Parts: sequence; C-alpha cells; structure tokens
Amino acid sequence: MILKRLYDQKLAQASYLIGCGQSGEAAVFDPNRDIEQYVDLAAAEGLRITHVTETHIHADFVSGSRELAQRTGATLYLSDEGGPDWRYRYAGEAGATLLKDGDGFRVGNIQIDAMHTPGHTPEHMAFMVTDTAAATAPIGIVTGDFVFVGDVGRPDLLEKAANVQGTMDAAARTLFASLQKFRKLPDYLQIWPGHGAGSACGKGLSSVPHSTVGYERLFNWALAATSEDEFVEQVLAGQPEPPKYFAEMKRINKEGPRILNGFGHPPRLPPTRLDALLEEGALVVDTRSAAAYAAAHIPRTLSIPLNRSFTTWAGWLIPYISDVYLILDDQESGKALGEAVRDLAMIGLDRVGGAFGAGAVEAWAERDGGLEVTPQMSVQDLAQAMKTGKVLVVDVRGRSEWEAGHIPGVENIPLGFLGDRADELSRDRQLVVHCQSGGRSAMGASVLQGRGFRNVANLVGGFAAWEGAGFEVDREQQLPSHS
Amino acid sequence: MILKRLYDQKLAQASYLIGCGQSGEAAVFDPNRDIEQYVDLAAAEGLRITHVTETHIHADFVSGSRELAQRTGATLYLSDEGGPDWRYRYAGEAGATLLKDGDGFRVGNIQIDAMHTPGHTPEHMAFMVTDTAAATAPIGIVTGDFVFVGDVGRPDLLEKAANVQGTMDAAARTLFASLQKFRKLPDYLQIWPGHGAGSACGKGLSSVPHSTVGYERLFNWALAATSEDEFVEQVLAGQPEPPKYFAEMKRINKEGPRILNGFGHPPRLPPTRLDALLEEGALVVDTRSAAAYAAAHIPRTLSIPLNRSFTTWAGWLIPYISDVYLILDDQESGKALGEAVRDLAMIGLDRVGGAFGAGAVEAWAERDGGLEVTPQMSVQDLAQAMKTGKVLVVDVRGRSEWEAGHIPGVENIPLGFLGDRADELSRDRQLVVHCQSGGRSAMGASVLQGRGFRNVANLVGGFAAWEGAGFEVDREQQLPSHS
Amino acid sequence: MILKRLYDQKLAQASYLIGCGQSGEAAVFDPNRDIEQYVDLAAAEGLRITHVTETHIHADFVSGSRELAQRTGATLYLSDEGGPDWRYRYAGEAGATLLKDGDGFRVGNIQIDAMHTPGHTPEHMAFMVTDTAAATAPIGIVTGDFVFVGDVGRPDLLEKAANVQGTMDAAARTLFASLQKFRKLPDYLQIWPGHGAGSACGKGLSSVPHSTVGYERLFNWALAATSEDEFVEQVLAGQPEPPKYFAEMKRINKEGPRILNGFGHPPRLPPTRLDALLEEGALVVDTRSAAAYAAAHIPRTLSIPLNRSFTTWAGWLIPYISDVYLILDDQESGKALGEAVRDLAMIGLDRVGGAFGAGAVEAWAERDGGLEVTPQMSVQDLAQAMKTGKVLVVDVRGRSEWEAGHIPGVENIPLGFLGDRADELSRDRQLVVHCQSGGRSAMGASVLQGRGFRNVANLVGGFAAWEGAGFEVDREQQLPSHS
Amino acid sequence: MILKRLYDQKLAQASYLIGCGQSGEAAVFDPNRDIEQYVDLAAAEGLRITHVTETHIHADFVSGSRELAQRTGATLYLSDEGGPDWRYRYAGEAGATLLKDGDGFRVGNIQIDAMHTPGHTPEHMAFMVTDTAAATAPIGIVTGDFVFVGDVGRPDLLEKAANVQGTMDAAARTLFASLQKFRKLPDYLQIWPGHGAGSACGKGLSSVPHSTVGYERLFNWALAATSEDEFVEQVLAGQPEPPKYFAEMKRINKEGPRILNGFGHPPRLPPTRLDALLEEGALVVDTRSAAAYAAAHIPRTLSIPLNRSFTTWAGWLIPYISDVYLILDDQESGKALGEAVRDLAMIGLDRVGGAFGAGAVEAWAERDGGLEVTPQMSVQDLAQAMKTGKVLVVDVRGRSEWEAGHIPGVENIPLGFLGDRADELSRDRQLVVHCQSGGRSAMGASVLQGRGFRNVANLVGGFAAWEGAGFEVDREQQLPSHS
Repeated sequence: MILKRLYDQKLAQASYLIGCGQSGEAAVFDPNRDIEQYVDLAAAEGLRITHVTETHIHADFVSGSRELAQRTGATLYLSDEGGPDWRYRYAGEAGATLLKDGDGFRVGNIQIDAMHTPGHTPEHMAFMVTDTAAATAPIGIVTGDFVFVGDVGRPDLLEKAANVQGTMDAAARTLFASLQKFRKLPDYLQIWPGHGAGSACGKGLSSVPHSTVGYERLFNWALAATSEDEFVEQVLAGQPEPPKYFAEMKRINKEGPRILNGFGHPPRLPPTRLDALLEEGALVVDTRSAAAYAAAHIPRTLSIPLNRSFTTWAGWLIPYISDVYLILDDQESGKALGEAVRDLAMIGLDRVGGAFGAGAVEAWAERDGGLEVTPQMSVQDLAQAMKTGKVLVVDVRGRSEWEAGHIPGVENIPLGFLGDRADELSRDRQLVVHCQSGGRSAMGASVLQGRGFRNVANLVGGFAAWEGAGFEVDREQQLPSHS
Repeated sequence: MILKRLYDQKLAQASYLIGCGQSGEAAVFDPNRDIEQYVDLAAAEGLRITHVTETHIHADFVSGSRELAQRTGATLYLSDEGGPDWRYRYAGEAGATLLKDGDGFRVGNIQIDAMHTPGHTPEHMAFMVTDTAAATAPIGIVTGDFVFVGDVGRPDLLEKAANVQGTMDAAARTLFASLQKFRKLPDYLQIWPGHGAGSACGKGLSSVPHSTVGYERLFNWALAATSEDEFVEQVLAGQPEPPKYFAEMKRINKEGPRILNGFGHPPRLPPTRLDALLEEGALVVDTRSAAAYAAAHIPRTLSIPLNRSFTTWAGWLIPYISDVYLILDDQESGKALGEAVRDLAMIGLDRVGGAFGAGAVEAWAERDGGLEVTPQMSVQDLAQAMKTGKVLVVDVRGRSEWEAGHIPGVENIPLGFLGDRADELSRDRQLVVHCQSGGRSAMGASVLQGRGFRNVANLVGGFAAWEGAGFEVDREQQLPSHS
Repeated sequence: MILKRLYDQKLAQASYLIGCGQSGEAAVFDPNRDIEQYVDLAAAEGLRITHVTETHIHADFVSGSRELAQRTGATLYLSDEGGPDWRYRYAGEAGATLLKDGDGFRVGNIQIDAMHTPGHTPEHMAFMVTDTAAATAPIGIVTGDFVFVGDVGRPDLLEKAANVQGTMDAAARTLFASLQKFRKLPDYLQIWPGHGAGSACGKGLSSVPHSTVGYERLFNWALAATSEDEFVEQVLAGQPEPPKYFAEMKRINKEGPRILNGFGHPPRLPPTRLDALLEEGALVVDTRSAAAYAAAHIPRTLSIPLNRSFTTWAGWLIPYISDVYLILDDQESGKALGEAVRDLAMIGLDRVGGAFGAGAVEAWAERDGGLEVTPQMSVQDLAQAMKTGKVLVVDVRGRSEWEAGHIPGVENIPLGFLGDRADELSRDRQLVVHCQSGGRSAMGASVLQGRGFRNVANLVGGFAAWEGAGFEVDREQQLPSHS
Repeated sequence: MILKRLYDQKLAQASYLIGCGQSGEAAVFDPNRDIEQYVDLAAAEGLRITHVTETHIHADFVSGSRELAQRTGATLYLSDEGGPDWRYRYAGEAGATLLKDGDGFRVGNIQIDAMHTPGHTPEHMAFMVTDTAAATAPIGIVTGDFVFVGDVGRPDLLEKAANVQGTMDAAARTLFASLQKFRKLPDYLQIWPGHGAGSACGKGLSSVPHSTVGYERLFNWALAATSEDEFVEQVLAGQPEPPKYFAEMKRINKEGPRILNGFGHPPRLPPTRLDALLEEGALVVDTRSAAAYAAAHIPRTLSIPLNRSFTTWAGWLIPYISDVYLILDDQESGKALGEAVRDLAMIGLDRVGGAFGAGAVEAWAERDGGLEVTPQMSVQDLAQAMKTGKVLVVDVRGRSEWEAGHIPGVENIPLGFLGDRADELSRDRQLVVHCQSGGRSAMGASVLQGRGFRNVANLVGGFAAWEGAGFEVDREQQLPSHS
C-alpha cells in the first residue's frame, strides 16, 4: 500500500492519495481544486487514479473531486448521509456512487469503509483503510474534519458561516456522539486528518501531521470531556471567527464546482488602465509585500500580500460579486500572477479581470505624484501618544487573541470585520492599527484608507513588540485553554 | 531601444520583441503559438505589448499573432500585399490594420516601416527598424523568410507544399527582383531573420543568429548569382522535401488560427485502454527514446521520440484528421506531456486524445508478452549480408543527403514518404533501414512495422558508421554546394 | 511540534526533522550526506538546526551527521552503547555528546529520550519523542533500522557485509530481546522508521511511511514469532544479498565521513579522451538508459542507468579503489551530472574523474564504427532456442526471487555477483541474461560484455514476460513468506 | 559557426561563446566568475570549451578566464600588449598563450585574430572572427570595452578608479587613435561588445545588444568627433562616478583570481548571534526589499536589497577587508542566499560569514522592541517643510543626473560617497534623502542611520515624483548630451 499526503500550506489542508502497488489503482481523498498535483503524483508513482472521494462538503476551499474524477475517468464516491439538505446536487450528473454508513469500496488490495461521523457537518464521513495484503484490520482512518491532531472539527460553522440558525448546539451534541464511536476504535489506529495548524475549521490544531486514536484519547481536549454538556460548552468556546467566504464554499461544493480545465491567464494591463478602473470603483488588490504597500501605494487599492496567508485574507476581504484586478511584484511576475490566480481559484474567486506590474505604482506617481503612504509608529511613540488621548488604537486580531492579552484601552475589531464596522471609528482622530506582529494590521490600514480614513498609522512590530518592550498588558478572564 | 530574440529550437524559428524603454511599449514580430513567452518577457523588461505583426503567412508553424493581439489588446498589423489569394481572412474580425509597401507604425520612439519583399510568399513583408531617439536611419531589418544568414527563403514551397501548381519558377523570379531591392540597402544594416539552421524554409541556413546586408552581399550564395536565370536554377535546386504539414499551416494561418487559451491537459489513460484504441485503429505515438522503442514496443504504435526533432517529424507523420494518443517516458511524465502537447499545438495538432505512461508498455508485456523488438544490425554485419543479396537496404535520408554519398545499391525513400511508398518494398526480404546516424531510421522502422513488415532491422550508427568504418560509398553528380 | 519526514527515493531512506515552533530549535535524525536539504527545510519552517543525531552506524549510505552538525553549529549526539568495537572514532574531535540508554536531550518543548535497541547493530538507539507542550507521554519513536513498517532491521548484515564472522545468530537473539522491550510500548505510539520499501536493510518493508506499535504487534511477522528460536530462524531466512559497498559504509561512518562542502564539479572531457582512458583500463560508467546502451555502446563501458536504482547498483558494481568516469545523456547534461555525482557521493564514491556527453558514443562510432550492441531476444524465441540446447540462460535476480519462480533449467547468479562469478559461464555458448522485467539484466549483459563475452543477449520483458506468455515455471520449496 | 551571447543583468556584462559545429570546439570570450553557465551551454550545444580568452583586465567584475580554462582544460589566451605594468601575473602559472596585435588562433573552422585597441585600458584587445567555412572575411568583432553600441569604453577609469594619476588624458588620446583604426573596418562588420545599458564602463550604452561598424560610424557620438581634442573633452565629460570596488577588481584580475570551485555555502546563524556580531562592529547587510527595511529594521544594519542592482551597490558600499553577514527575505531563503553569495563573489566579495532569516528582525523586536523605522515623506510634505527651512535635503543621485535637473537648494552627495562625506551633514536637522525614484535613497538613509543620524526620512517617489507633481526644478548648464 502506497500512502501519500499532499499538504497545501495556504489552506492548511491535507489530501491523501492511497494506492495499491500491485493493481496500479489509486484513490484520492479530499482533493482540492489544484487537481494537476494528484495526476502528476499518481503518474510519478506508477499509479492511475480510479477512485475519488471526499469526507464532507468543504467550507474552506473549492473541492476538486468533481473535476478530478472527470479528468481521470475515476469513479466519484459521495456521502449519502445527513438528510435531504446535505445532498450533493451534482451527484447524478457526475455519475457518483453514493455512500451510506458502512458502505465500502476496493482499490486493488485496499479496502475502504465509510463511517458516518456527523458533527462538523451532517453528512461527514470518515474512511477506514485496510491493507488486505498485509493485515486483517484497518491501519488508519482518513478523518477529514472530524478529528484533527489535538482538536476536532468545529460544529458551529453551519450556524456562523452558512447562516443555518440554531444548529450549533445540536451539531455539537451530534459531534459528541460521533466521538463516542471514535473512542471505541483501537488505540493503534492511525488518524490522517484533513487540516493542520492554521486552519479555521478548528481552534487548536497541531503541526504534527498524523496521530493515533490512543494518543488523541489521552491528549486531545475534545476526548477528555466527561459529559456531553461540558463538551458542548468547551467546543463552542473560543472558536475563531469563520472567514466570510465559507458560506459561498458550502454552496459551491454542494451544487458542484465549475470545471476549470486549468486556472487560466488573465490579461496584463497597461498602467494607464488603472485610472479608469479605480474611477469605476473596480476592486484592485495590491499583492506586493506589506512593507512595499506601506511605503507607497495607489489610493483606494486593497493590500493583500501574496504570501502564505493570501488565500485566507482574499476570502475575508474580496466579495464574490466583483471582478478583481491585481498589482504584482516585479520579479518573476509571470510566476506571481499564476500563483495569485491559482490561490484565488482555490476558494472560487475565478473572476480576475487583469493584472498590473509594480511599475503601475511608479507610473501613477509620475502622473500625479499622489501615492499614499502608511506611516509607521513605534511602540515607544504609541505609548507616548496614548498619554495625550489623541490616538485611537484598533487591534485587528481575533477575539481570542485579544482576550489572551491586549494593549489597555484599545478597540478590538478583527480584520475580517473591519470594513463592515469602519463607521464605528472616529474620522477625526489619529488611528493606529495593530495586530500580533504587523501582517494583518497592514491590510487593516489599507481597508480603512480605502474607506476614506486619511489619518491611519501602523504599529511597528504589533502587540509582540509592545509586550516585548515591557509595556502594560490587559488580559481577559478565559476558559482554560486547550491548545 | 530594447531588442530581444526568442528562438524556438524545435521550429528553428525566431521571433523578435522590440520595445521602447521610455514609453514602455513593445512590438512582437512573428510570434508563434506559445504566446505566454512574449507576455512574460515583456513583463520582465517592464514593457507592455502594444503592437503585433508578422512577416508573412507562415508555412511551418501556427502563427500566434491573432491570439497574442487578442490577449494583450495590442493592435495587429497584417500584410495587404500579394493579391486577393493571399489576404488574411480573419483580418477584419481581428480589427487588424493592413499594411501596404511603405506603410509604417510607431512603437514609442521606434519607427517600423514595412517593405514588400515577395518571393518566398507573395504577401511577404520585411520591417525596417529605426531607433529615432538615437539615429536618423534604420539600425536593422526584420527579414522573416526573405533573407536568412547565408540563404534565402525558398520560393518553391507554394507549389510543392501547398500544391499551387506552376508557381515556383515565377516565385523564384519575383524573389530575384526583391533581392535586387535588398542589395541597395546600406551595408551596415543588421538583418534579423525568421529562421536558423535546421529550418525547412531554406536549404543552407547558418547557425549565426544575425548578420548584415554587406556581409550577406559578399557571402550569401543567393546574392552572388549574376543573372536571374542562374539564380532561378540555383534556388530551385537541392531544396529539402517540404514537410507534409506545411500545406495545412498555410490554410490555418490564412483563415485565422483557433484561440487556444493555454495548451490544455489531455487525460492520462489506464494501460487497459490501449487494447481497444489500437483495435479501433487509433494513432498511438510512442514518444520514448528511439533506443527504448527499439528494445521493446507495442505493435502498431508509431515512434516519434520527444526530442528537438519531435515537432518536425510529428508534422510529417501525423495526419491532421485523427486523434492522437501518446506514450510518455516515466520520469517527469507531467513535464513530458506538457511538452508534447505544446509541441504538437505549435503546428496545429490540437487533437491529443490522451496519454499513457511508459508503464503501459510493461503492462502490455504482462498481458500477452507480445512486445515487438527492432533488431539492430552493425555495419560490419550489413556489409556481410549485402554480399548474400538477401537484404534490402532502405536509406530514409533526404534526397540531397543521399546524393552527397550513400551505400551502394540502396533504395532512397525519405522518411516523410516512407508510409506512402511502403508498397514499393518487398515483404519477403529482410529489410534494413538506415539514415545518417540512427535518429530517423528508428522512426522509419516503426513506420514499416506499423504497415505489417515483420522483418525490419535498424542499422546501428547509420551512414556515418558505414563511412567511418571505411566501406564503399557512392556519390551522385551534384550542383555546386552553396551551404 | 513540527514533524517533517525527508525521504530519499534512491536510498529508500528516511530522515526526520523535529522542531519546536516556539523556541525555533530543531533536531535532525539520521541525516544523509545531502545536508543542504535539512538546512533549507529548517529555514523554510523558520527553524534552526540545533541538534543532530543518528540511530546507528549506517551500512547503506554515508552519514551526514558530522557535516550537518559542523555546518550549522548544532550539537551532535552519538550512541555510546554497543561496546568498544562500535564507538564512533570521530566523536571526540566533533565534540559530540555521547548517549547511553535512557539519556535524553531537549529541543525547545520537545523531549528526546534514547532507548538502546541492539540487534541490527550493537550500538543501535531508538528515540522516544515527547511533545511536552501538548502531552505527558511520547507521541512517537524514531526507530531507525530497528522496527520498520512490516519488518525489522536484519541482524545478519555485520556478518555478511562487514565480515564479522559468527555474529549473525547472536545478533538475531539480541534483536529478539530488543523486540520484547518494543512490545511493551503503548499501542498508540507512532513509529517513524529509517527505511521504506526497497531498502536492503530488511526483506519486506512496506511502502506505508509510518505505523504504530499496536499495528506492528498485530501484523509485523517479526513480532508474531512465539519463541526466540523460531524468530532467529525466520529473521535469517530469505534476506536479500547485502550490497558489496555496505562494508565500506560501516567503516566510513564509524571513522567519520569526509567533509565535502558541496558535491563538487568534475570536469567535462572531450570525446577523444575516451580512447586513452579505456586503454588504461579506467572504469567508464554509461549512465544512459538501458535501452540506449543496448542499442549501441562503447565496448568495455559499464551500464548503470541514472534512474532510481542508480545508487544501489553503483554500490554493487563500482569498486572504491578506482576513479570513475561517466557518460551522460544529452538532455540537460548539467543536471544529470549533478545528480550522478550526488548519488555516488551519497555512498562515498567521491572519485569521479570526469564526464562525457552522449555525443562521445557517436564520436566513437565515427572514429571506428565499433559500437557494441546487446541483442534483444523475445520469450518466444528463447523458448524455441532452449529446445535446441544451444543457449545458456542466466537469471540475475536475487536468490529469493529465483526461489519464488524461475524459468526451468536456468542458472541463478545475482547481478551483484555476476562479475566475480563470470568464469563459471561458458564462453562458447550463446548467453541469454534475464531478470524480472529487464532492468538488471541490461546491466548484467554489460558486465559480461566487459569481461569479454561476445555472445550475450538480453531477454525482453524478463521473467515477467515469460510468465505472462504462459511458459513453464519452476518453483522452489520455501519458508512461509512474511512480507 | 555557432554564436551565443551570455548576458549578466546585474553586471550589465556580455560574454560570448563561439563554436564550430563541425569540430565541436568552442571559444569563450570574457567569461565572468559564474563559470558553470559556459560549461552547461557548451554541453547543451554539443560543444566542448577548448579556448578561453578575454579582451582586457576587467575593472567591474572578477574574471572567470583562469578558472574556466582550468576546469575545462582549455588553452587560455591573454594579452601581451600594454607594457610591463599591464602584464597578467598569473599567465605563466596558468600556461597561457600570450597574444600580440595580429596574433590569432583557430577554433575548428573559425579563425580568431587579435587586434590591439588600447584606450579603455593599455592592454585591451578586440577579436576579429572569421567563419572560414562560409566566408573569406570576418563576420564580426568582439569589442569588449572598446566600442559599445552607442558609446565607447571610458578612458578615465585607471586614473579615477585605480588611482593611476595623470593618465586619463593620455588614455583618451590613445583611444582616439584606436578608434581611427576601427573606422577603417568594413561597414558590414558586426560588433559584439562587452557591456550593455547600465554599465559604469561608459556613460551612455544602448540596450540594443549588437551593432555594426557602419551604424556606429554614423550614430555613435564618439566616432563623430572631428578632432582629437574635441573627442578628449567629450569623452572625459559626464562620466559616472566609478564604483569603489573597481580598483580591487583590477588588482585581482591582474594577479589572478582565486579558484572557487563553486560559490560555497555560508552557515545560517541563529537570531541570537546578531547581538554579538553587531556589538563587535560586524558588517550586517539587510538584503530584504527597501520597503521592508524602511518599515522596520535592526539598527546599524546596512540596506542593500537583493535585486538587479545588488552587485553594483555591494561593490560601492561593502569594504573588502571585512566579513559580511546577510539578512535574507523569508521566502525561498535557500535560493536568496545562493543568489547573494554568487552576486558578491562575482566582484570578489568572498567573505560571507553567515546568514540570518528575516525572522531575525522579528526576534530582535521581541527581545527589546528596538526596531528602527525610516519615515517616508511625501513630496507635498517636503515642499511644505522646505519653506520652514528646518529640513536638509540630500540628493544621492549621480552628479550628471543632478545636473540634468534637481530640487532647488539641495545637497548632492552620490550614494557611493555618502558614507565618506556624512560628516559634512548637520546632525541637528531633519534630513530628507532622495534619489530618482526611491531605490538609492533607501540605501542612503540606511548609510546615515548606521553613522548615528537619528532624524532621517526618505522622500517617497524621489525626484520623479517631485517633478511629476509640478514643483520647481533647477537645471545646471551642460555639455550637449550624447546618449
């Protein structure tokens, strides 16, 4: 049996390819939309993809199951559990085989058995994997967003992200029940989960890629709860804000993602096009580094640096209804454009209208000199300024980060909500935006500048620098931490 | 003025990007279908493509002018010379600007002037390039297939490849007249031609990438002819056989090549599909090395190794009317598939139905053991066997190579015609196929095996080894060589 | 805790990098000589390498521990168990910390505890890993060559490969005792072994990269033995022949591998140098594909194709005492040379004297026409020829493969011993060499040709094709299979 | 004849490989220290390097001639002209063949003839290239730093950069004489020069890669001068300041550059090492982008961003006597380190002591919060501030840029001299540094901060933004421009 884990850093998401060396067949579990990687890996291993499946209707990325099955001619396996609201709408058209709890299929010598594990979502399946050539019992379980290393898949997403009101308590109780089934699995069974550290599908995932049932039973907080009520309280507490784009993902993945046949090549546009686009109110995303943006940028552009967090913040800050235009760093802009287009398509943002080089920023400056700067303030200067009462400090970190420690007297508006809540802020005072170490606050400043705030500075080094310099910190009372 | 030459090894074809650093504009001359390379290069140089043009309706590759102009929003410039038969059919739909002899356009500080230079084709243009910021006279001329380094564009293609009967003598005379215009250009003018060594658009192109008018006047055989008649005789003599696909290229490039938006991703197929495909008579091309094919291959597959000559031989051996299936080498098969699909699309072979890994060959062997082998014969053994009279030797090199020296008593059927003329060969005798050093004869053996010849060997080392070993060689009387 | 597995396909060998995200420290376990990969990976993860260790004195590759510790300034940890004969000679000079059973060290929040597990080697250590930030008990164990997925590290290597006579029975008993300790570890503990499928350090390793104590207890044959004697008999049976270079590895890794500071750049040599080198008896290895070699090669060169098995066969077939010269495939020869030099250095073959392009083969042919061919015989032709009794068939597979099924009446000389035992073979008869599917027999034919055998053919498709075609097969009585 | 130009963007430097396809031999002209590129290119073309030469003792990069000849076994050809002070000291040890004016050598069918062309340097040679298989006269001339496209090699370098006093007038007159020889060459001859736009070896080089004698005679300002005196005046006027490192290059290239055998791998260091290094006064270069440095950097580090100008500014700002430590951007830091080490070695800065990741900056912030920021000032704010007289503006562009137009009343200290002349500036006033568009001023600010200036701002968009916004500009009287 061949086992390969494919990990997408930007989505903090794991897919698995499991193949039988003897028959040359392979199954892919939870493919994302970058389907070429599975085809290439299978070819490199001398395998062909004959089965494609997924654990559940994903909320955090566009599923590649439909397109991968179509491309390779593999059979698609989809969950038939969870009730009528959680049926895959495209299952029939895709010729998918529907799976109920206990159903299985065979990939050469490898037996795959579906196990219904609702909680994170109602239709969620885990897959027991048995290498029948070597053993008579399963070696591992593909858990998707059911059990992670050190955490479990949050049951509050449907209510919070997909706006299915009043479901999160019930979902938490369902998850508790599913975990009781999990507890009964043998200690030695490996678990191969769908996410790693950094995913918003849980609150405290480990960086260790895989674990075992026995280890999780001992050290996963979610399996330590002594009663259902205790578990429900704990699992619903301290969850990060679900990114806005999650609702759209659910819809897309249920209806059936559009077949892409490659991520496409948006046109590169001349700098002169920028004026008209911005006048029409087009969404222009500056993907250069936070520092480059702060040093000089075109007014009304939005800063989302093309780094490991690009996909996440694009999902928070870019609405699905508008075309997107990109400003790219100069070096290897062909590569940068390809990466940005892929990253956006991974969460269904397929409408990239065109791209500009970094030269567009200089060209703008030469046309009218009107580049905008984001002033940088040191923690020492901030401490001084706060005494005068003239500055308003906005902490754009998540709520739980803020609770764990924050600068006294600051506002907390998580970056993802800053646009919606900008009107709460005074336009007359000097605003200082900060986060943990400077990544999110740079985007935050750009969000505010884009809404007409003229007096916005960024705190250099963020809360980490504040704390490091020994200034006062406030902490909120908290539930015991689990991660 | 920025000048960049983009050279495609497999087509032996040069495109040029000429840009103005001050205005940021750039023109592309003779783009091929791999248009991303121009977009990337322009971006790397801080330029945007604003003008696209081509010297003539190409016969040896699909033009990228239409798609590049559409992608970048550049204006397309096309020749309006050559009479009604040589009008670009898609010019209107593409919003192209038509050029007559003497027309020009401006790319920032750079002035481009069209000069009608018929002969290779009736509508052929060359482009004089003047860097007005630095000079008052042209610095160079983009000559396309008019004048090469050491040769000129052959005037016999229309008759031989596009089947426009009775035109080659007239075209040669037209070319002679165009060359008289060329002779009057200043000595110092650089020439930037459309092809290099290995192109079938001439018979003796140099490997030197660029030259000057004065140097060519002295040393290019075509400018040494003292009379029109002498020139006509010389230019029509000794031209290589035009590849079969040339006719199709002319048609495509005149009508307007299909917009591709990327070269596409044909599916990878399971080995088991091969049986059915071969039974249906599908065209399966084995792109592994000649040696791998000779050692063991699936009967009825056609050998065209994926090397620098792949495009050329694909154009000769693959008909446009059928879907193509590929067998790829194992290592980095994703890369190999992309390369093969691109190479085929460069000459309009867009119908790749799917691809198999090299494992398909082994799988076939395991199913029925029936792999075919191409025996390898040494020149010593051949010399021995020829004494017995039992072998029939086929030299698959071009006619002019054969004339320059060949094994006594052998047949000469150039590889490109071997399929059509296979019936001339006896099926009862041992056949030995050879070329210069072994590349073409390996494909030739596969062509014969595919037509049911069972007794076909390949001569190791080809004519070079025969000559190197000191065996007897026959030579035909020849015109004086020009290259 | 960050856990990364680095797997070298050619050595079938796994190293591990385990880091603490909070402190930024990382430990590397069992690094091989390609040390840049660890430095790069640590940098990409935001970690610095502070600890380097290895489970034992490796027999199958040159250890990178010494150089990696020196490069990064990390502390080196080496085993102090196993008695005076198994002391690392360079430990003092390298400032290494010596470890006894039960000793430990700390990498940020991660506790590493050494556990003496002799058997495969006397000094062998396994490392228990505890993520103290998340748990109070170990999460996994780095087992090196103690326990693999589905197998255990063979105890017969010292006797067979390093010529320490009479040790293999005792070592097997020691291993049995170590396995009793292993059995007592908790079921849920993950095991992270030092090798995967294809390694010669065991006889039946799985392709699954990691396992658990509980799963191995149930399904690993080595933990199923009911008595020490039964285990000893089983573990010593059916082991593959240890590659010849293993003895040298042991010596190098104990004394202290030479610091390389990069793999170096051997000169590229003109084809004309080949004559003199071959005359002097230099070792020239042709790294082109088996098929290319069979089709035409220079006499007295040795064929070892540069593919996944290159390192293994280089270790078998190249003596440490001589300089090596390489013939490389043409395409991307810079990359091929780098790869070959690295692959050889991985097993201590540092003496590459220079490299030739594939053009050297053609150049040789042009000089004297004397290229050698390896004729290919089909299984059908072989079946026919065997009836005449004129052919001698040599099966160069391993003994256990031969026992599991072979062509009736053939000789079995494993490829690694073919050179030493060539004199057993008749020089008067037609020899046909075969292996499983053709990879090893191609090298085997080259070994025989290099020793003056002129009449050597290769069986197309090997034993697999023979069996596939339905010809008769003989099988030897065997112990029950465990893998 | 095969002709390949290898262009190094960072040095604006061209090497040439000229080979004979028939004999397989190749000559390399003016190789730089990155010698692998020549070996790889030759291999890809099926050639071997048999001859290595250079036009003169380079002042702007370390020559690769010595190492390339040694690596490949090629014969080295060096100039024997220019008198005793300009002899290559290592010629004998390297077994070089010395060339006088008129001497030649043969590369297969290609004849190379040396032509003494002093002026830029006393020993300077140009090389006439004749493709004897195709012509009886030369096709081109490798001109090195004698004649460029649109310019000539400056004759003032020896005096200004190498401190050979009183030589520049004489050298200019010698150059004039050499140009008279050049004028007599045939119009059609191609010229293949040693530098392109951006090189400091001239003042107005074109971006066009090659030209002809006739074209240069018409449009190169240096060939238009009607008298020697006029030429001398013109050629010595308006030359850019020669980078400081040039003197060292001359010395190294005359004595014989050190053989590197690869660029080496400096260690990566833990962030904690930074404190001690900075305390000891070590030179720490921050290679992150200018914007990242401005936003937050460690005090006393020097900013030289790793972009196309890295080599140039490293040569200006890094002294040869000290070890250098690097701070690298996070993404692909392995690649960035390799690139930086190569770039430095290209100009002989071989003493890289170690490298830090960008995490070192954050780690510093967490230790004491003391990151330094470079404030960014807009041109509008500057215009306002200049009215108050409280700011001192320093223009760090070259003298000729300043003369062509500058902000009224500003100081001009070119970046390369800013360190030496920092004491001219007041430490009590707010300093604002600017250049053309912001690249050099960012480094300039870091130079001043490193010398203890605490109140240094950078002008956003530089002079280009000032001029673009319509503010007042002063211009100096100038000689007529030639470029």
